[in-house]
Amino acid sequence: MDHAQQVEPFDYVIFGATGDLTMRKLLPAFYNRMRSGQVPDEARIIGTARTALDREEFVDRVREALVRFLPKEVRDPSLIERFLMRVDYVTLDGTKSGSDWDGLAAVLSTAPPERIRVYYFATAPQLYGAICENLHAKHLITPFSRVVLEKPIGTDSATAEAINNGVGQYFPENHIFRIDHYLGKETVQNVIGLRFANPIIEAVWSSDFIESVQITAAETVGVEGRAAYYNTSGALRDMIQNHLLQVLGLVAMEQPESLAADNVRNAKLAVLNALRPITGDAVRTETVRAQYTEGMVGGKPAPGYLEELGEPSNTETYALLRAFIDTPRWKNVPFYLRTAKRSAEKVSEVVITFKTAPTHMFSTPPIANCLVIRIQPHEGVELHLNVKNPATDAFTLKESVLNAEFEMGGGLPFPDSYERLLLDAVRGDPVLFIRRDEVEAAWKWIEPVLDAWSENKSPMETYSAGSYGPSKATTLLAENGHHWHENME
Amino acid sequence: MDHAQQVEPFDYVIFGATGDLTMRKLLPAFYNRMRSGQVPDEARIIGTARTALDREEFVDRVREALVRFLPKEVRDPSLIERFLMRVDYVTLDGTKSGSDWDGLAAVLSTAPPERIRVYYFATAPQLYGAICENLHAKHLITPFSRVVLEKPIGTDSATAEAINNGVGQYFPENHIFRIDHYLGKETVQNVIGLRFANPIIEAVWSSDFIESVQITAAETVGVEGRAAYYNTSGALRDMIQNHLLQVLGLVAMEQPESLAADNVRNAKLAVLNALRPITGDAVRTETVRAQYTEGMVGGKPAPGYLEELGEPSNTETYALLRAFIDTPRWKNVPFYLRTAKRSAEKVSEVVITFKTAPTHMFSTPPIANCLVIRIQPHEGVELHLNVKNPATDAFTLKESVLNAEFEMGGGLPFPDSYERLLLDAVRGDPVLFIRRDEVEAAWKWIEPVLDAWSENKSPMETYSAGSYGPSKATTLLAENGHHWHENME
Repeated sequence: MDHAQQVEPFDYVIFGATGDLTMRKLLPAFYNRMRSGQVPDEARIIGTARTALDREEFVDRVREALVRFLPKEVRDPSLIERFLMRVDYVTLDGTKSGSDWDGLAAVLSTAPPERIRVYYFATAPQLYGAICENLHAKHLITPFSRVVLEKPIGTDSATAEAINNGVGQYFPENHIFRIDHYLGKETVQNVIGLRFANPIIEAVWSSDFIESVQITAAETVGVEGRAAYYNTSGALRDMIQNHLLQVLGLVAMEQPESLAADNVRNAKLAVLNALRPITGDAVRTETVRAQYTEGMVGGKPAPGYLEELGEPSNTETYALLRAFIDTPRWKNVPFYLRTAKRSAEKVSEVVITFKTAPTHMFSTPPIANCLVIRIQPHEGVELHLNVKNPATDAFTLKESVLNAEFEMGGGLPFPDSYERLLLDAVRGDPVLFIRRDEVEAAWKWIEPVLDAWSENKSPMETYSAGSYGPSKATTLLAENGHHWHENME
Repeated sequence: MDHAQQVEPFDYVIFGATGDLTMRKLLPAFYNRMRSGQVPDEARIIGTARTALDREEFVDRVREALVRFLPKEVRDPSLIERFLMRVDYVTLDGTKSGSDWDGLAAVLSTAPPERIRVYYFATAPQLYGAICENLHAKHLITPFSRVVLEKPIGTDSATAEAINNGVGQYFPENHIFRIDHYLGKETVQNVIGLRFANPIIEAVWSSDFIESVQITAAETVGVEGRAAYYNTSGALRDMIQNHLLQVLGLVAMEQPESLAADNVRNAKLAVLNALRPITGDAVRTETVRAQYTEGMVGGKPAPGYLEELGEPSNTETYALLRAFIDTPRWKNVPFYLRTAKRSAEKVSEVVITFKTAPTHMFSTPPIANCLVIRIQPHEGVELHLNVKNPATDAFTLKESVLNAEFEMGGGLPFPDSYERLLLDAVRGDPVLFIRRDEVEAAWKWIEPVLDAWSENKSPMETYSAGSYGPSKATTLLAENGHHWHENME
């Protein structure tokens, strides 16, 4: 399948089309793919939402969003107008079975029956089931229909199961595309390329050589206006259950038979199933949760989480888990999964720290070799090696960092992860989407921690806004003789 | 032993002190080490040569050489004058046992008897024995005396043995420092650092992962004024027998017990002894020799070797050997040893090409991983990896080069390799000098090729000045499915 080619004509129906995700991410992504020639002229993007708008009003909002969210170098007024011709809107409450559906049906009926149809759910997940029921009742699910589900798929095992059942009643699993935008990131996919296209990397990809793995997703932003929503979720649900466990799956999986979707997903699932449960006392020793307090971010004072929220809370803005994968390959290798809001820097990365050389040949001890996969920003790879220090005649060592920044060529920015994922749903290629059993395995592993935290079996730590996290995160690694990548200097 | 510290006071007696090597390399090297504080004030550099000069005349020549050969940023008039105060001169034909020796003896006698004394032979190697005999006869060899021998140590096994015997009669082996300036190069020593301080490198350092090794030393210059001398030597003797086989030793040796000189030299010797002999028909299939013909170098026409020489010649300016090391580690891995004059670029490098991934997962075949150790210019390391091509959604691969240029810090140039080696002789540390058995093992392996070439058992190829070499060098690699690093694009 050549993904650079134009896709088949499609109708994309977005539920929640007036929302932030649609305006900020989905529409710019479609525009960029039209710009690169992958969106055929017959394609349509049909927004739906409860807000009563006519087509012109919606088109005006879309135009405004494109101007606002597209980088200047790709903004092209005539292309924007051509794009807007592909956009339509139907006022519709997807959870109600009223006559508004007739409007959507009428729009869709103008396309040939074999037209690929993608329903994109950018609404609250608890509505997914009701929307599906109505789609079915209105005979809008054709054999060529797919559904894309935004996160979160539930807030625990039970709610995830309910959502999956609600959708699964009307769509077969291979027509359900659970989106995780981390899998759309080039450098996340590149874990597959790095591992399986480079024998010298795969040769050392096991506990024989690897001492520990850090997977970090940290943001400098806080919860700001979203405090009330965020407070129902928290860092563990918001980032680790989905994004970081998916990255873990790619880093730790055995080599899949091929890049066919189910081979890759089987391999990731096996990792999730092999995660050692964190239960009982382990929640206290293997996890850290924390909230940010007031501090300085980028030279400016920032309030604490509780001040932003305006009430007491048991929700973490920082989460750290020490995970072990009970397979021969990963015997005793700790995987540190960490996410933070209001962190000192915005960084998503995987840091593979290797065991040090068992040698006393040199006048100075060698540092541990280290492979850093930078997911963002500055997408790239760096490898930390020991070299002879040229400044002395004695055989002392010095760290040397081999670096490659990935580039698109032509000075272009990396494509947003939504670009690829939106069209993969049209192509019917689910390799970068999460299968039902993966979602459920992830919840199964996370749930005991969520439960224990809600029962305060692990204390809520604090960290200053703009810092790297609570001190307990440092001591947890120090127990294994490890330290965080940002503290390696 | 802390090599950054000041060494003990010494008297360095240079035979051949008016020659090019002394002026261009040795004296600037001493100056630089005085500049970095490693040369004590009591140290003396005593030039000797047949040319009748008084001290002032010699000092004037030294001053002129320093101004000419030192980079501007390290030239310091007052330091140069301080340096010149350490310089003396004695007119002396070292091969004659005349009364000139009394002058040298008188100069040396002013130092305490335990003063470290280094005799540096920068003369024709066939004179080494006679000079030693005279040093002995004049009672100038103290227990604190060492001798540094410049290359070439012979032109074949027999002449090497004669030289080694001539010197060995008066100096014990551990006082004989056979200099190979390649071993003084930081990036050559760094082969030891890279291999043994980095488990992820050592893990893949064998025929299990390595497909081939290229060791190249190419120059853009021709023989110019030195044609008559060069014609008695040739590329194989001039570069491969010593420098490239030493690099090969470091690349291929088993891990030595320590960095003590004899441990490292034993490990290198084992490599030389395990080289598969190139005899009989193998000379025709495993070696390439060639002379450059007229061509363009750096945009300017350059004459051919025979034109420069002015007579027919059987001497090669290009040599390539395909070597195999018959040990378990290097089973069936070809080591391509190559040197050239009048090449397209000046480059010394080691290129480790790894086997490719046994995978058909990706839409494009992976390139072979490749580690390039750049000895000069641009000292550094690069690692060629496959990464996902971010420009396509399909899982195609793209080459990414992780790069590190080694730096001295402070924008300083790398120290010339002579700097370290000159003082190592004072320190009595022979780790970067060649032991007698290494010289002899290298000649033993080279000699059958030299003999066969002199009997024209392998044809003399040609290559245009300014090209990468004869076409037969390309076809020799192609037999194994390999290609030269410069042709990898």
